[in-house]
Amino acid sequence: MMIIDFRSDTFTRPTPGMLRAMSAASTGDDVYGEDPSVNQLESIMAAYFGKEAAMYCPSGTMSNQIAIKVHTQPGDEVICSDLAHVYIYEGGGIAFNAGAQVRALEGDRGMITAAQVAAAINPDDVHKATTSLVCLENTSNRGGGCCYDPEEMNRIKNVCRDHDLKLHLDGARLFNALVATGENPKTYGELFDSISVCLNKGMGCPMGSVLLGSAAFIRSARRIRKKLGGGLRQAGYMAATGLYAMEHHIARLAEDHHNAKQLAKYLLQKTFVGHMLPVETNILIFDVQDAWTPRLFADYLKKEGILVTPISETQVRMVTHLDITPEMVEKTCAVISQME
Amino acid sequence: MMIIDFRSDTFTRPTPGMLRAMSAASTGDDVYGEDPSVNQLESIMAAYFGKEAAMYCPSGTMSNQIAIKVHTQPGDEVICSDLAHVYIYEGGGIAFNAGAQVRALEGDRGMITAAQVAAAINPDDVHKATTSLVCLENTSNRGGGCCYDPEEMNRIKNVCRDHDLKLHLDGARLFNALVATGENPKTYGELFDSISVCLNKGMGCPMGSVLLGSAAFIRSARRIRKKLGGGLRQAGYMAATGLYAMEHHIARLAEDHHNAKQLAKYLLQKTFVGHMLPVETNILIFDVQDAWTPRLFADYLKKEGILVTPISETQVRMVTHLDITPEMVEKTCAVISQME
Amino acid sequence: MMIIDFRSDTFTRPTPGMLRAMSAASTGDDVYGEDPSVNQLESIMAAYFGKEAAMYCPSGTMSNQIAIKVHTQPGDEVICSDLAHVYIYEGGGIAFNAGAQVRALEGDRGMITAAQVAAAINPDDVHKATTSLVCLENTSNRGGGCCYDPEEMNRIKNVCRDHDLKLHLDGARLFNALVATGENPKTYGELFDSISVCLNKGMGCPMGSVLLGSAAFIRSARRIRKKLGGGLRQAGYMAATGLYAMEHHIARLAEDHHNAKQLAKYLLQKTFVGHMLPVETNILIFDVQDAWTPRLFADYLKKEGILVTPISETQVRMVTHLDITPEMVEKTCAVISQME
Amino acid sequence: MMIIDFRSDTFTRPTPGMLRAMSAASTGDDVYGEDPSVNQLESIMAAYFGKEAAMYCPSGTMSNQIAIKVHTQPGDEVICSDLAHVYIYEGGGIAFNAGAQVRALEGDRGMITAAQVAAAINPDDVHKATTSLVCLENTSNRGGGCCYDPEEMNRIKNVCRDHDLKLHLDGARLFNALVATGENPKTYGELFDSISVCLNKGMGCPMGSVLLGSAAFIRSARRIRKKLGGGLRQAGYMAATGLYAMEHHIARLAEDHHNAKQLAKYLLQKTFVGHMLPVETNILIFDVQDAWTPRLFADYLKKEGILVTPISETQVRMVTHLDITPEMVEKTCAVISQME
Repeated sequence: MMIIDFRSDTFTRPTPGMLRAMSAASTGDDVYGEDPSVNQLESIMAAYFGKEAAMYCPSGTMSNQIAIKVHTQPGDEVICSDLAHVYIYEGGGIAFNAGAQVRALEGDRGMITAAQVAAAINPDDVHKATTSLVCLENTSNRGGGCCYDPEEMNRIKNVCRDHDLKLHLDGARLFNALVATGENPKTYGELFDSISVCLNKGMGCPMGSVLLGSAAFIRSARRIRKKLGGGLRQAGYMAATGLYAMEHHIARLAEDHHNAKQLAKYLLQKTFVGHMLPVETNILIFDVQDAWTPRLFADYLKKEGILVTPISETQVRMVTHLDITPEMVEKTCAVISQME
Repeated sequence: MMIIDFRSDTFTRPTPGMLRAMSAASTGDDVYGEDPSVNQLESIMAAYFGKEAAMYCPSGTMSNQIAIKVHTQPGDEVICSDLAHVYIYEGGGIAFNAGAQVRALEGDRGMITAAQVAAAINPDDVHKATTSLVCLENTSNRGGGCCYDPEEMNRIKNVCRDHDLKLHLDGARLFNALVATGENPKTYGELFDSISVCLNKGMGCPMGSVLLGSAAFIRSARRIRKKLGGGLRQAGYMAATGLYAMEHHIARLAEDHHNAKQLAKYLLQKTFVGHMLPVETNILIFDVQDAWTPRLFADYLKKEGILVTPISETQVRMVTHLDITPEMVEKTCAVISQME
Repeated sequence: MMIIDFRSDTFTRPTPGMLRAMSAASTGDDVYGEDPSVNQLESIMAAYFGKEAAMYCPSGTMSNQIAIKVHTQPGDEVICSDLAHVYIYEGGGIAFNAGAQVRALEGDRGMITAAQVAAAINPDDVHKATTSLVCLENTSNRGGGCCYDPEEMNRIKNVCRDHDLKLHLDGARLFNALVATGENPKTYGELFDSISVCLNKGMGCPMGSVLLGSAAFIRSARRIRKKLGGGLRQAGYMAATGLYAMEHHIARLAEDHHNAKQLAKYLLQKTFVGHMLPVETNILIFDVQDAWTPRLFADYLKKEGILVTPISETQVRMVTHLDITPEMVEKTCAVISQME
Repeated sequence: MMIIDFRSDTFTRPTPGMLRAMSAASTGDDVYGEDPSVNQLESIMAAYFGKEAAMYCPSGTMSNQIAIKVHTQPGDEVICSDLAHVYIYEGGGIAFNAGAQVRALEGDRGMITAAQVAAAINPDDVHKATTSLVCLENTSNRGGGCCYDPEEMNRIKNVCRDHDLKLHLDGARLFNALVATGENPKTYGELFDSISVCLNKGMGCPMGSVLLGSAAFIRSARRIRKKLGGGLRQAGYMAATGLYAMEHHIARLAEDHHNAKQLAKYLLQKTFVGHMLPVETNILIFDVQDAWTPRLFADYLKKEGILVTPISETQVRMVTHLDITPEMVEKTCAVISQME
């Protein structure tokens, strides 16, 4: 039976072209800065977002954690959404790695506002943690892949500037946002002090993430990466897949978004599908109701070879990606059509 | 002009009797466990709450921080109210000292429920921080000195037992709760794995706190106290004030509560006083409105020698304590009566 | 010009066979435990060393750091050699990641004795850090690739058992030791609570390390790996190189050792080569003297396409590995012969 | 029986004059900066050592730990003697509180040289911890109370300046050094970025320490003190003893030094007393030999009411202080004279 895996875009496997790029990669010891593929990927990504420098990391979690560590002191406070990946899916890493405290704000689908940020900044008082960093996530995973309003990001940047706060972007799915909105990537380089971009989600690489920032920031980041054990040797085999993805896998994200909307259309025709977050990119999050629970729903589809994720007592998540073909979407829609 | 200081019960100064007890204290080097006053205070407090062991600390913040550190591992998650002192007034110490992350719940006046706690416990998943500790605060400072419902504390205890979580009490003003509710202190010893009790608030000591727990817990706590620099030498001079307070200053807290209610009555007659949190012990928290802001209100009273604290854009806090006499309350009521 | 790179065995590049294994790897999302190549590598490695469980990591530094973190509490003390990689080449990671303190002992070429360990254990005293872990490194990098005496390791194990200390092995070059001594790898599994083994040194993989221990230890380790950002997705491409190396690259380490001894023979004929550490495996560390400094020596050879590393004011290090052929050794010997 | 306690100068009890000063102290809530005695003590101490600012702490361990935390980043390296109190007697606090690593140098009686410091500074390399701080201890406790050569301190300062390192002084017994050498205290203020001075050793206070530094340093230090729980309320009762000691207990340290030398003279006449560290201030550290062990020696004297501390397998430590009178010295000498 064909497996149709909507659990996450982290399950993508490299295309034949990407595998060829991997095998043919020029490599060296990146701990010594001698891996040409890594160096090239870092240059291309920095230029793409208009940042001075970049650093390849094994994972998006590590990119985020390093950025947070570099921007904060132990005991500082980080402002983010209460649905932020850095807060709820990185194992308590902000406290573990940076010794920093989180002020988690209830936002709209994981997106917070400038007014909320401004109100959450602590006064200068020894009783209070020093607020030093704001983290946004775009697209917002737990928000159903929604995209931040550019104006709101601008307003948040202004609050940060006024209060001397750093601004970090968890851009695990930033390429999805760029494709969905048509924004200029350099706008992000201007807005954010640091950006973490994932290569192993919609981009289809086996692993890897790139952290972007100023030259001084990246120098500090390299020291932290070494302490965490994120310094790799012939990382070029993996970096080469990133180079390939930058060339071939960005524009095609539009297909994933199209597929997601198709699925949404069919799902919303069913009465057992309740509230669904607006589908802006490649993620569907919706309630199941009536006789269905997320677990029952997932188990039913699993028998048909279709994998989805129950993410709460009421919600199911489905993610489209490189390995989801139009045929798979069609089959899934057909299966759903017959459910009651 | 007589200064009437309602800013906090931390401003209390020792009575003549307490000062005599301080000067006459038997002391020794407590780092070597040879201070008889400290040893006696620790014994008395442990017995009072029905705990195996106790440890004297310079401050309630340190008692809380040590307890949280002993109960958690770096990267763990601590559940508490979003108004909890340990979260918002200890300088980000949970992250700094324990490397632990806070899951802050929106409660009722700083009090959370068993249902909320149960819902906030993370599943066993590497992406999630390991939930290991629940912290309650009784009375709740930012909740206007309100007292926890004993039944709710029991239910929270049951949730903790079922999920193998530790339960810590920030008892900075636990004596106020005991006096207001008539509860048996040993009930607290049974419910909580550890309790931090302050001696320098309503109890009137110049400094000091006592941390209570099992013998094994206190052994670990002594190691952490040393690392933080909380090991003192002839601490007996300060501990002796605690011994004095245990004998003379518990029952009299009822007077502070009476005074607080008197003040509330006068305040609530004024139209410029808006919503006031129920006054259960020695703290008043209320909105000021119409032409008044907290800052204007505080400045006006200051000219009369009456000190109060604006704690937010809309709220004022007043605290009654050992150094607030009936005359002072009377004068304050008189001043308030004439305000418009 | 042919480059002959003796700087480190981390510079090795995959053989064609290894590259084929990489491209053909079965993979999945290892964060979900679904990567068959990773799972197979972990099983094979655990079985090879007689340990219950194993975990793939991006780097040996991460394996070491995770092990140290799992075995210790913040404020604990770790005993190791003052030349230990974990102490001097991991960016202060023991303090950064584990909050633990190092008691660095002056050993013989990076190897410490049971008597030294026993003398360095702190008494049970709040003033002292709690000694909880001993780390050995075999072979010892800064000791010129020397191999621990099995009897001494046994005695150290006994000291650890008697004092309830954990024993970790940094086995970055453990395969070199196994090949040089003919020891049974399962002996190591019995002696050590945890072992970190590198795949990217003599084994020739582009990256990767495996951490070994009990099932419970590895469960804890997986949580820490996630926090550090070491959880990878389709890690199987890299793990497959490890599987290949386990089959094809262990026995051949004997060639590297032979090459190293050849080089040593030629070097020791030169009067400008001073004291050389005994060459037991694939590392040469020697003083250069007379008119030569390590820097001058390295610069001279560099002109001939031969890369070596000055590691101190007096010492040079050369490392043989997969990419050093007999012809390269011959050429190097010829060049050295003509130096004065 | 009269107890003669040579175990430590931490055992001193306040004189009647000091107790009177304590009881009569003007106090306030120091967390709000309103304790006049604390403020006065901080001013006096800052002026005495020529530093901009000062902060009262519960203990010398806390002063040291805060200073180290402010001067370093997690993962940094601190250079000090392998006998330094901050390294061996503060519970691993450098790693616990600051996440920093120690490079412990073997010095002369706990005193290290500028040449050693210069050689121990790490190069700029991601593998290495960043060296950021040097800690000296004067007098050196484990060095038998010896005093640093002022010229050597100057040279160390120059090395620090050249390499952009901070320089901290653990001045637990700095007053002993000042009295013994006649140095100007302001010299210390010029040399060191921060100084921790104890009030509860030779100065005779029940507790307390003062941390000195620039205004910016002390601002940062106040934030760390709060996180550790070192912020006190009516600390003025304790600070007042410090004010008293500054006036009455500095010059008299010469008596302690004289008493120590007297004891040394008698001890050195005994054949069972082996090597004794030069007695420069108030500490004697000497080997006992022949039929005696430190434990037997201590037990024998204890029966005579004389308390001394065995500090290693061969060494005994005796400390003179405020509570050791000439009569006690005389009696002790008499007892020693009769030992064989």
